Amino acid sequence: MSGSFLKVIAVSEAVKIAESIVPVVDSENVDLEDAYGRILAEDAVSDIDIPGFDKSWKDGYAVIASETVTATDNMPVMLRLAGRIPMGIGEDRSIVKGECLNIPTGGRMPAGADAVVMLEYTDEVAGDILVKRPVAPGENVICRGEDFKKDSVVYKAGKVLTASDIGALAAIGCARVPVKRKPVIGIISTGIEIVDVDTVPDIGQIRDVNSYLCSAFAKKSGCIPRRLGIVRDDCEELKALLNDAKDKCDLILVSGGSSKDLKDVTAQAIYGVGEVLVHGVALAPGKPTIIGKIGETPVVGIPGHPAATYMVLSVIVRHMLRKLCGLEKENGTLRSAKLLTNIASEKGREEYVRVRITEDGLAEPLFGKSGLLNTIVESDGVVKIAAGCEGLEAGEVVEVFMW
Amino acid sequence: MSGSFLKVIAVSEAVKIAESIVPVVDSENVDLEDAYGRILAEDAVSDIDIPGFDKSWKDGYAVIASETVTATDNMPVMLRLAGRIPMGIGEDRSIVKGECLNIPTGGRMPAGADAVVMLEYTDEVAGDILVKRPVAPGENVICRGEDFKKDSVVYKAGKVLTASDIGALAAIGCARVPVKRKPVIGIISTGIEIVDVDTVPDIGQIRDVNSYLCSAFAKKSGCIPRRLGIVRDDCEELKALLNDAKDKCDLILVSGGSSKDLKDVTAQAIYGVGEVLVHGVALAPGKPTIIGKIGETPVVGIPGHPAATYMVLSVIVRHMLRKLCGLEKENGTLRSAKLLTNIASEKGREEYVRVRITEDGLAEPLFGKSGLLNTIVESDGVVKIAAGCEGLEAGEVVEVFMW
Repeated sequence: MSGSFLKVIAVSEAVKIAESIVPVVDSENVDLEDAYGRILAEDAVSDIDIPGFDKSWKDGYAVIASETVTATDNMPVMLRLAGRIPMGIGEDRSIVKGECLNIPTGGRMPAGADAVVMLEYTDEVAGDILVKRPVAPGENVICRGEDFKKDSVVYKAGKVLTASDIGALAAIGCARVPVKRKPVIGIISTGIEIVDVDTVPDIGQIRDVNSYLCSAFAKKSGCIPRRLGIVRDDCEELKALLNDAKDKCDLILVSGGSSKDLKDVTAQAIYGVGEVLVHGVALAPGKPTIIGKIGETPVVGIPGHPAATYMVLSVIVRHMLRKLCGLEKENGTLRSAKLLTNIASEKGREEYVRVRITEDGLAEPLFGKSGLLNTIVESDGVVKIAAGCEGLEAGEVVEVFMW
Repeated sequence: MSGSFLKVIAVSEAVKIAESIVPVVDSENVDLEDAYGRILAEDAVSDIDIPGFDKSWKDGYAVIASETVTATDNMPVMLRLAGRIPMGIGEDRSIVKGECLNIPTGGRMPAGADAVVMLEYTDEVAGDILVKRPVAPGENVICRGEDFKKDSVVYKAGKVLTASDIGALAAIGCARVPVKRKPVIGIISTGIEIVDVDTVPDIGQIRDVNSYLCSAFAKKSGCIPRRLGIVRDDCEELKALLNDAKDKCDLILVSGGSSKDLKDVTAQAIYGVGEVLVHGVALAPGKPTIIGKIGETPVVGIPGHPAATYMVLSVIVRHMLRKLCGLEKENGTLRSAKLLTNIASEKGREEYVRVRITEDGLAEPLFGKSGLLNTIVESDGVVKIAAGCEGLEAGEVVEVFMW
């Protein structure tokens, strides 16, 4: 039973292997109102010039700039008021030398005019306008296509769509949005000691924390979790479930119970129906992690205790889910902060220390038994201490991976 | 028509009034697997001690600590091996003086024992165990309730539930989770020049950007958007729609087109069927904002241009939505960064300057005409310049409100 032999590799190596077996999901089209938070699958291109015409950016008078060059308070330039341009109507207007047109903010510039004098720098006298300041060509005018040009790329594929992006997509006519499909993550819990959440565990039993944890983590990562149930101690049952899941899911997470015997069942099953690429990662907690494939579907065997599960999700699985979703880089989960106190570390393996972000924005390491959940509850994220590093000093700036 | 007279007040005052008219929504119970990202409505209390028994934190031998005080490599303490404790079984075991029991990580501590000696500090010789290091009472033991005590509050009401929170709620038996109901936000667009997103606008028309923008912003804020349609220029139609919406929505957003005439229709309608508390805010862009109530339902009239809409959403409406959702404070949307370049500002009104976060984590101000959308597209957030401040200098640390 090869499942019991661990060959421990570095986290960075494990992540590299894990990412290499993850495909990027295909894409689908969704209505614009459903696109918030999704990942753009193709470049978004404007189908029109925005604005579609030269428009005024101020309330005032559309003029020929060169006629205002000498204008001052004492020696204003007098222009004939040729009329008023209404808002929002596409009528063609024009001016000739010696004329101006009243124009509201957003109004369409008349042909011939190339600038707008603001209302406050003018006086109206018996149908004529006195201009008291010069304007430069283009002043107070937004040119056709100045916001977005027709056929220009407004967003590149791979962008996570924010609220303001949705607004801009509306402006450029993107009624249906090509986005990456949300990957389906199959989640299996294993362990003879696992009971449902609504059951009060007997001594020696624990509640099914991991499938909920994995499920919420999948959602957070933009995926659709599918909880496939609890397998107690039957290797054949687990094999059958894995075989079935490989065609219905884009990635499978198998989280072990805390039983050593059972971890072997998980390993045995993955070895039995698939290919194991990694079995053992220099990560504490989280050492007995398995990374493999069943057919072409990536599978991760995550060791038992919820605290270890969360660490493996945060350190390894998140990279897989990110790639699966079609995201090239992390999306705002890292935050720089100064350490409040020293952190000592054993050389030779990567260590992840949970930290709380204080009111002052400092990262306060939370020490304590790594098997406890409560340091996760109190913490805001985790700081990585590289293998080969003896620790970090108070005041050092660290990158916190926020939960 | 009172709608045309603006009495401009400071942003902070407008926010205070806006928050004061917002109720907090009621709560509902959801299944744990649907609780990710929701806001806890009641304190979450553990229904059990976790762990439920004293357990070993290491593979080794359960011992009476006081018997190991003199143990060294050269003079080990010899204890009789009284048996092995299996994993995950609730059997009662005990030891007496002179004895030890083999115990796995996670195994239940036998009565009488108060510490665990790690395997690597022992030798087994013909059924006896040689202990080569002393252990202190409690060493390598996780006590009953050390993680969470029965009846202790694990999360306080108001917490936004993260992935790790979902795991901890599973552990403490929270199968159904009391969360705040998601508020329903009614969204109305007004403007004679507004056309649907899938229509190519004629000159003088613009696409319905605002309802999509408001809708995505509502989602981002944890609300359920309900787009109620476009009202072109009919005050009575808008009044009827507002009257209908007030009973179906927790808050209503009416975004104007860019027509001045139409802004009056919006103002007229809100004045007509409700109560106006604010009409005019010292905010650029965003000055003609209206804040009021229709019956007990808060309503915000947002001025026309999408860039102004987004500013009013980000600066005023977000506080209303946060309170409506039941959140006491902002949830991770602020980020500290050093300014890359100076920002000048007019004294006397609050100004919001869009910034981009550079690769080095600096905040780079994006200047340009505030009416353009493209500075929103390029920006990551906005920096507030207080009224009365003449500007900010390069190198100053500013708070960026991230989009």
